[in-house]
Amino acid sequence: MDEVLRQHIEKLLPLTDEEFAFVLSHFTVESYKKHDFLIEKGKSVRHNYFVISGLLKLVHNDELGKEHIVSFAMEDWWESDYFAFYNGGKASMSLQCLEDTQVFCITLEAYNNLCAGLPKIEHFLLIKGTGGHIAAQQRILSFLTSNAKERYDQFVRKYPLLFQRVSKTLIASYLGVSRETLSRLSS
Amino acid sequence: MDEVLRQHIEKLLPLTDEEFAFVLSHFTVESYKKHDFLIEKGKSVRHNYFVISGLLKLVHNDELGKEHIVSFAMEDWWESDYFAFYNGGKASMSLQCLEDTQVFCITLEAYNNLCAGLPKIEHFLLIKGTGGHIAAQQRILSFLTSNAKERYDQFVRKYPLLFQRVSKTLIASYLGVSRETLSRLSS
Repeated sequence: MDEVLRQHIEKLLPLTDEEFAFVLSHFTVESYKKHDFLIEKGKSVRHNYFVISGLLKLVHNDELGKEHIVSFAMEDWWESDYFAFYNGGKASMSLQCLEDTQVFCITLEAYNNLCAGLPKIEHFLLIKGTGGHIAAQQRILSFLTSNAKERYDQFVRKYPLLFQRVSKTLIASYLGVSRETLSRLSS
Repeated sequence: MDEVLRQHIEKLLPLTDEEFAFVLSHFTVESYKKHDFLIEKGKSVRHNYFVISGLLKLVHNDELGKEHIVSFAMEDWWESDYFAFYNGGKASMSLQCLEDTQVFCITLEAYNNLCAGLPKIEHFLLIKGTGGHIAAQQRILSFLTSNAKERYDQFVRKYPLLFQRVSKTLIASYLGVSRETLSRLSS
């Protein structure tokens, strides 16, 4: 399982055995069942998560109790409520398992210690962070695109594996369209 | 003017004179007039921009020609179409001056050379990138929040200076509400 994390990092940054052991010592591994919560709205956010196996949804529940999907996260993806994680505040979103899920977890303290103890890891984190920032900017753009068909096509093109794996109801929530609209788009 | 960039970096990372000269050698300075475009939709994105003075809007024009504001950028902020900047593609958004604006510009090649030549700068870039990622995640959340009043209050609270500086029409476009709705919210 450790190899999953090593391969993930070494795609961008070669590490010696000693360096990887140091990296690994900053993480814990946790296993969750389908429907379990990793982050609950209103509670503290203790970790940033790297998905080893499984599938998560990051959701916002509005005041009417309606669930909106901010993002999905599957194997090789990082996810957290980043504002709360970095600022020590309460979660404004929930992170919940759509499948049984295993994750590497890192606390903010461990994250800071890791960067201080192995500055070269910041090169890896910078590239991953840039990727996350790009994905978020693209998602904002998708909200501003008024054409639901275009949004749907983008999703299928960008995330073909995810498309196979999540229900149409969840995809509709992610795209911000009704289940009925989605049926029309996908037919 | 160079001091603006130096102070901006040194808030997070102390630099020697020699290091800062190295950093500075990777940037150019450009001046634009109100209404000028730094990035035009459909064209190449050559730079990531750091605002020295002035105010920018990053916008998406939908197929009906309606303008949606993805973000604003003022003094001390970085802005670009990040997907196109990092992937060498064409811009899907435009970046335009709301006031006369002066910026530091860095190309992707210069950015990569800077990181390779001065790895400690990645610590600074990681913190800035994390901030940008958080802001983007918060903006996604704001779209999912159905309550326009809440969205308006958040904007006023988070960006009091910006609120003074941009027209109500632009704020309405940023919040995704009509100009009439905004008048109601702000009264």
